[in-house]
Amino acid sequence: MKQEFQKIINKIETLKTNLYNKDFLLTWEKNLDELKEILLVAEALKHLRDNNISTKCFESGLAVSQFRDQSTRTRFSFASASNLLGLEVQDLDEEKSQIAHGETVRETSNMISFLTDIIGIRDDMYLGAGNTYMREVGKALDNGFNEGVLPQRPGIVNLQCDIDHPTQSMADLLHLKKHFGSLENLKGKRIAMTWAYSPSYGKPLSVPQGIIGLMTRFGMDVQLAYPEGYDLIQEVIEIASKNAIENGGKFGVSHSMTDAFRNADIVYPKSWAPFKVMEERTKLLKNKDISGLKKLEEKCLLQNANFKDWECTEEKMKLTKNGEALYMHCLPADISGVSCKEGEVQESVFEKYRIQTYLEAGYKPYIIAAMMLTNRFENSAKVLDRMFKRNISRETFKVF
Amino acid sequence: MKQEFQKIINKIETLKTNLYNKDFLLTWEKNLDELKEILLVAEALKHLRDNNISTKCFESGLAVSQFRDQSTRTRFSFASASNLLGLEVQDLDEEKSQIAHGETVRETSNMISFLTDIIGIRDDMYLGAGNTYMREVGKALDNGFNEGVLPQRPGIVNLQCDIDHPTQSMADLLHLKKHFGSLENLKGKRIAMTWAYSPSYGKPLSVPQGIIGLMTRFGMDVQLAYPEGYDLIQEVIEIASKNAIENGGKFGVSHSMTDAFRNADIVYPKSWAPFKVMEERTKLLKNKDISGLKKLEEKCLLQNANFKDWECTEEKMKLTKNGEALYMHCLPADISGVSCKEGEVQESVFEKYRIQTYLEAGYKPYIIAAMMLTNRFENSAKVLDRMFKRNISRETFKVF
Amino acid sequence: MKQEFQKIINKIETLKTNLYNKDFLLTWEKNLDELKEILLVAEALKHLRDNNISTKCFESGLAVSQFRDQSTRTRFSFASASNLLGLEVQDLDEEKSQIAHGETVRETSNMISFLTDIIGIRDDMYLGAGNTYMREVGKALDNGFNEGVLPQRPGIVNLQCDIDHPTQSMADLLHLKKHFGSLENLKGKRIAMTWAYSPSYGKPLSVPQGIIGLMTRFGMDVQLAYPEGYDLIQEVIEIASKNAIENGGKFGVSHSMTDAFRNADIVYPKSWAPFKVMEERTKLLKNKDISGLKKLEEKCLLQNANFKDWECTEEKMKLTKNGEALYMHCLPADISGVSCKEGEVQESVFEKYRIQTYLEAGYKPYIIAAMMLTNRFENSAKVLDRMFKRNISRETFKVF
Repeated sequence: MKQEFQKIINKIETLKTNLYNKDFLLTWEKNLDELKEILLVAEALKHLRDNNISTKCFESGLAVSQFRDQSTRTRFSFASASNLLGLEVQDLDEEKSQIAHGETVRETSNMISFLTDIIGIRDDMYLGAGNTYMREVGKALDNGFNEGVLPQRPGIVNLQCDIDHPTQSMADLLHLKKHFGSLENLKGKRIAMTWAYSPSYGKPLSVPQGIIGLMTRFGMDVQLAYPEGYDLIQEVIEIASKNAIENGGKFGVSHSMTDAFRNADIVYPKSWAPFKVMEERTKLLKNKDISGLKKLEEKCLLQNANFKDWECTEEKMKLTKNGEALYMHCLPADISGVSCKEGEVQESVFEKYRIQTYLEAGYKPYIIAAMMLTNRFENSAKVLDRMFKRNISRETFKVF
Repeated sequence: MKQEFQKIINKIETLKTNLYNKDFLLTWEKNLDELKEILLVAEALKHLRDNNISTKCFESGLAVSQFRDQSTRTRFSFASASNLLGLEVQDLDEEKSQIAHGETVRETSNMISFLTDIIGIRDDMYLGAGNTYMREVGKALDNGFNEGVLPQRPGIVNLQCDIDHPTQSMADLLHLKKHFGSLENLKGKRIAMTWAYSPSYGKPLSVPQGIIGLMTRFGMDVQLAYPEGYDLIQEVIEIASKNAIENGGKFGVSHSMTDAFRNADIVYPKSWAPFKVMEERTKLLKNKDISGLKKLEEKCLLQNANFKDWECTEEKMKLTKNGEALYMHCLPADISGVSCKEGEVQESVFEKYRIQTYLEAGYKPYIIAAMMLTNRFENSAKVLDRMFKRNISRETFKVF
Repeated sequence: MKQEFQKIINKIETLKTNLYNKDFLLTWEKNLDELKEILLVAEALKHLRDNNISTKCFESGLAVSQFRDQSTRTRFSFASASNLLGLEVQDLDEEKSQIAHGETVRETSNMISFLTDIIGIRDDMYLGAGNTYMREVGKALDNGFNEGVLPQRPGIVNLQCDIDHPTQSMADLLHLKKHFGSLENLKGKRIAMTWAYSPSYGKPLSVPQGIIGLMTRFGMDVQLAYPEGYDLIQEVIEIASKNAIENGGKFGVSHSMTDAFRNADIVYPKSWAPFKVMEERTKLLKNKDISGLKKLEEKCLLQNANFKDWECTEEKMKLTKNGEALYMHCLPADISGVSCKEGEVQESVFEKYRIQTYLEAGYKPYIIAAMMLTNRFENSAKVLDRMFKRNISRETFKVF
């Protein structure tokens, strides 16, 4: 273990990064070295935890989680990451709190931050609102810190917004790095990020947007495919195109799942709602127009039903590179005949890659922890080195 | 304190047990030595805590609690046990999470376990479902661990299911051991586990089942009594009979509270729903048949009302050994004239034994902690010995 | 830092106090030295935390929070205080628990306390009930401890009741001490505790009662003003009068906001419900008389609307000492044109003092922590001294 760990530390030390005290909101706001540092720190932490070596670097402190949407895995990933570093989670549950009662973001952001190191926010319901909200929180924290209200300026980690889902896409990237051996090996690899049919509606756009915005940074051949009308946010499409050009990769958009799968090394079939539907839905949600929402849902489900053939089947998998592309999903997947009648993926395909998707998900706690650690400590290599050298057993008595 | 503590350690070392990495789901799946080890470890931990000596053996890690039913005392017992050992509780609250949205048990079990040491589950609502569910979780964790998804295979502690309530019955057993001086002293002691009237319905069978399944292991004379029709699960009755034969005890079933109380050393009067009602209720719950449930409740409450004389009164207590049997209850009890008009126990009887029932409940956090500790550490005697010898004050500054 | 910290320690050592093992329920049950000790301990803890020095004094243990009302800031303050000292928060959420199901206070208080050091309670909804409830809990804990059920008798901290809001008023007092330089400097300072218009109703009386009950202890000139009919609890008025006489201060009651503001050094304009309305509301709440509550609300809002001129405006602020009185609020304030159409305070006034109100709120976690620490440790000066001297970095790796 020692040599492998040392190699990670050495690599981190070669990087030119500036993550300290910077919020992690969008992957495309970070330079390549910064993304690499997150991956390496996550790997190092996983290394230590897998060997039951303590990774605590906070003696006390709070990590506030704010979820505006239901969540099992992100909630547990955040709690795991906090515990890994020694922070205690405190949920800002809006049903329990007074936020809905007219408090301003500015005020609440300060009120929850007197002893807080990290705030994790998931806000993906309203198009044009989630990421904006996180920046408002950030400004309020800057103000509070500058005015002496807060002894430290807590860092913000985006746990999913309307634009990006950086903890997911970075966990996905780490999975790919591990699966293919290195980031270098990803160059030229084709990933098909495609829409897939689901009997639900209103799924956020942040996963496909996160994937095309990130994977184009690493020289991959990113093929986005969706039925006509299921557009993503235009700005993210432009970012992906620009990324591909600048990083020696490719970015294509088509309306054929079959074409996207052809010769793909990786497939990522996943349902999402059309941008325009999300826009309309946001308006209706803001107006609390229940009957309008009901009608929109019906319309949207009817529209979805035209594209039931957008299913990841064994047959379609045969089109991929040697018929053996890596299947990815952020989970939970809509599995035909299991979680729904007809869905995103055929049962046999999912079953074949089930463990792979679990491994993929397993990187998320470490990615979040890496974002926390790099936000709070200026020199992550030094911190990791100390963790390794002090060598405290996580299970205190296993050492005897 | 030192000698008493050393005696506990010495006793543990004589036992032949295999609790390490094994789930604790039913007491009758454990051998006698294993049950004794749980009791001894619980006693040792209580000893340390009562003297403000630290019992932490985890430097970090999560203890996930999953409650499918309301609960104050079990929730607090689990949280206390986790804190005692150094684990942080993370609730898997199904209202907050996506479990209800079609996720499979298999997947969720892995998703919550990446950094988890213990999962505590309470699932007592559906007959034939609770214990089965725990085993499904266990299989999913085995699979995840074997496939390299999980760095450790979290242990499962049954916090109450449809069949058994091992943390309750083991806490009750520890209370009896302390009250009568030793496990040896329990031999031949008569315990009356009887039904009692309550104006509510649908109370689980797991407490009486747990008691008859456990106390028959220790040579006790276990007398189960209930009105005709209020049967328990047949398999558990058979286990209790078999236990009594194998361990030199007795097991009798009658339909008279008075007969059961006669000459009893211990009485445990507690309401439960008839097995058949629970079966019907399970069907109705699964079908979400609200009006059917309403009708069943009415029918059941009417039926209950025939047995209002199944109350633990001062008069009935006079029938017990010297009129001084130990009254037990898992709490909260339905106290006549206090928490309901007519209930399980007369106010004066409850008041006399109130503190005893609190002491009984007070063992639960330590029983849960003992189940956790023996699951995660191969040699509990060594762990306890180290805790004692390192002698860290729980309140850091009390040492000065 | 060293000298300033040493001065705090020295001051604490001169005080004659008896806070150890005593609940903190009402400020007027504590002597002046005890209030001073709370302030000094809070200051010392803030000092340490601001310099990232560990203030942990519990190695494990639970801090139970029980909120019978929604709350963001008090919940976070309590969680922050607990984390600061090393205790883990466990919420006693009545929706999750069985308390509503007829359990007695006596029983539940013991059931949640087996491994608990502190219980924080907020119960401000029912007049005549909140403080009484806390004392019932206290008696139950005394009983449990004396009977050997509990290894320690947890301390109770009043997080707001129907009579007092000591964590708020003490945080306010610390803010004033810091703002004016010392407690000595508060002598003769005029504070206007006034009612203010709000479009809501049913706000508790505990903040104004807490302020007049506390600030009269420190030689201040406390002017209470409210529209006729908006009386506070008579007993608290009498306490405030008595306090003023005994401590060389003044206490006046008027029905003119303008008069109260005139020449004030500090203004605290805040809405509350009339005592009689709260009394009626308590009856209706107990009877679950929904339509009665609705009618009362309407009547009360109509009555409130007669006093919309009770707003803290720039014009009124000009009446204060040099037009520069310190504006205080417990937050969230009803800001005219921001959180409501017409409210307690004009936007420009609130904005001018916004950061001041945040600073005011920022003392609360430390006040709560000070109440916890002095309850559990006999010699707070010694504890603080040890914290300072052992000098453990809160962020473990910042020391390198």
